[in-house]
Amino acid sequence: MKLLVALGGNAIKQANEKGTTLEQFINCKKTATFLAKVVKKMGPQDRLVITHGNGPQVGNLAVQNDVAKENIPPQDLDILGAMTQGQIGYMLQQMMDNQLRDLGAKVPVIAVVNRVRVSRDDPEFRGENASKPVGNFLTEDEMKQVKAKHPEYIFKKVKPGDGKVWRRVVPSPDPAENVEADAIKKLVDAGVVVIASGGGGIPVVLDPDGHLRGVEAVIDKDLAGEKLAEVVGADTLLVLTDVEKAKLNFGKPGEKALDKITVSEAKKYLQEGHFLAGSMGPKVKACLRFMDWGGERAIITSLDKVIEALDGKTGTQIVKG
Amino acid sequence: MKLLVALGGNAIKQANEKGTTLEQFINCKKTATFLAKVVKKMGPQDRLVITHGNGPQVGNLAVQNDVAKENIPPQDLDILGAMTQGQIGYMLQQMMDNQLRDLGAKVPVIAVVNRVRVSRDDPEFRGENASKPVGNFLTEDEMKQVKAKHPEYIFKKVKPGDGKVWRRVVPSPDPAENVEADAIKKLVDAGVVVIASGGGGIPVVLDPDGHLRGVEAVIDKDLAGEKLAEVVGADTLLVLTDVEKAKLNFGKPGEKALDKITVSEAKKYLQEGHFLAGSMGPKVKACLRFMDWGGERAIITSLDKVIEALDGKTGTQIVKG
Repeated sequence: MKLLVALGGNAIKQANEKGTTLEQFINCKKTATFLAKVVKKMGPQDRLVITHGNGPQVGNLAVQNDVAKENIPPQDLDILGAMTQGQIGYMLQQMMDNQLRDLGAKVPVIAVVNRVRVSRDDPEFRGENASKPVGNFLTEDEMKQVKAKHPEYIFKKVKPGDGKVWRRVVPSPDPAENVEADAIKKLVDAGVVVIASGGGGIPVVLDPDGHLRGVEAVIDKDLAGEKLAEVVGADTLLVLTDVEKAKLNFGKPGEKALDKITVSEAKKYLQEGHFLAGSMGPKVKACLRFMDWGGERAIITSLDKVIEALDGKTGTQIVKG
Repeated sequence: MKLLVALGGNAIKQANEKGTTLEQFINCKKTATFLAKVVKKMGPQDRLVITHGNGPQVGNLAVQNDVAKENIPPQDLDILGAMTQGQIGYMLQQMMDNQLRDLGAKVPVIAVVNRVRVSRDDPEFRGENASKPVGNFLTEDEMKQVKAKHPEYIFKKVKPGDGKVWRRVVPSPDPAENVEADAIKKLVDAGVVVIASGGGGIPVVLDPDGHLRGVEAVIDKDLAGEKLAEVVGADTLLVLTDVEKAKLNFGKPGEKALDKITVSEAKKYLQEGHFLAGSMGPKVKACLRFMDWGGERAIITSLDKVIEALDGKTGTQIVKG
């Protein structure tokens, strides 16, 4: 099996935590405990590639950059994303390495700095189309102050009412190409467990002069992870989230957990609007892209069910058909 | 030629700059212009590995963490180091990639998250031995406030007089092992330009339970770079700094630039105290370790002289003998 695992947000920071170094290491250790067991079960031809989100971490960096802006020049969003690849990559790499040592499995693990190219023509770059909220909730006055300094920023009212209801939104363009595909493929082929495309990858565009340049955007990490799965030739895509199975009529009458479903069934449910945008929606979309590309199997489940789900015993299993 | 280049501080941020994203990209672009020319001249068996410092960047992150500490939990020093590997790795990788595209050289470049193991028994971990200043200059009052919150911190008076004369010092232990040696060697062997061991590597120690754990320390980036050179089997070590050649009697009567010298001569000069600790000292030390390990040639020069120095026309060239 050649497996790409896309970790959910709580793999690194729980929603109710502040995000201390210790808290994050403890979460990464738990994550690594499950993933190391997967590696331990692997044969010599099997491979594991890991990707992860960075929402809470990049959010914390953005707040630190803003609060300290009189002291230190705030860095652009692509730089903050790169920083979280170093931060989370290190924590996951260290915890995976330690768990593998415990299991007596001598498998090298390494995190890489990874860019993902997006298209300048992506509709998300057209002004008000931008859909990904980043940074703090602001009052209208605060929003206007930031807007005066950064006229290019787009803000949206994300909550009804007054008070802190405004938030900056940035484009969330579709991933077009994993820029470090060559190097990552070489590592995976050589038997290394690779952590890549963190936070959806550092978003870059190709300028007319042939140079790649970072942009203020956030790529969905599951869709970017799917591109990475293609690059490394994965046969299985495992998208982790906080529930054991995706559901029909989520939170409504007639709610029903999904077990094994075909690609056509999943497409129908997606079109019918069963999966929330910004939540289960992109996960199902990533699975369907993977299957359409030529993947064997896509699974949506929670971290603690990883082994059982890979054995086909739980999770929402999307198969050909 | 299998070349390891250790970049000097001004490769990423000039001393007189604040460190905006744009300033740092411009410096990285200049650095990449020279290094891409080196890659362009290389044959199919030649290899380039790059390492870099992170002093100004980790210093800026530490200030941001401190200023925003009421809002966001400050991260440990190993995490900040990992963040700078992502940040600087991305900037160098992007600029190298762009320059190589300009030259029509299709060579993959990738930065990796890289730990360096140090020994818990290193004398630098014995309290007052810690020698590497980090973070802001503080008054005695400020120092006592921080010390009350972090009794484990060690402070030293780094300037004579009153006022902001205190600074935190952390251990600067000797690098014992590049933890990701296996994965990095595979990448280099496969023809990838690898950026690794950034900021001297993320310092970790091996605990009695067999787990690696991050420590509050800063490893000298030239000494860690030398370990990396051993790992990848480099024949040439190029240590970049802000001067074209190392000097005898630096800043004193009888000052003399060094051209080609033997290992025995360099050892004699080092013992005689010609090279400043924390500056040219560790660079010469790194060169000598490399030659003692089995390197062919070690060079100390400035970025703009890279091509000439590799041709043997300038720089301080340390050769066998």
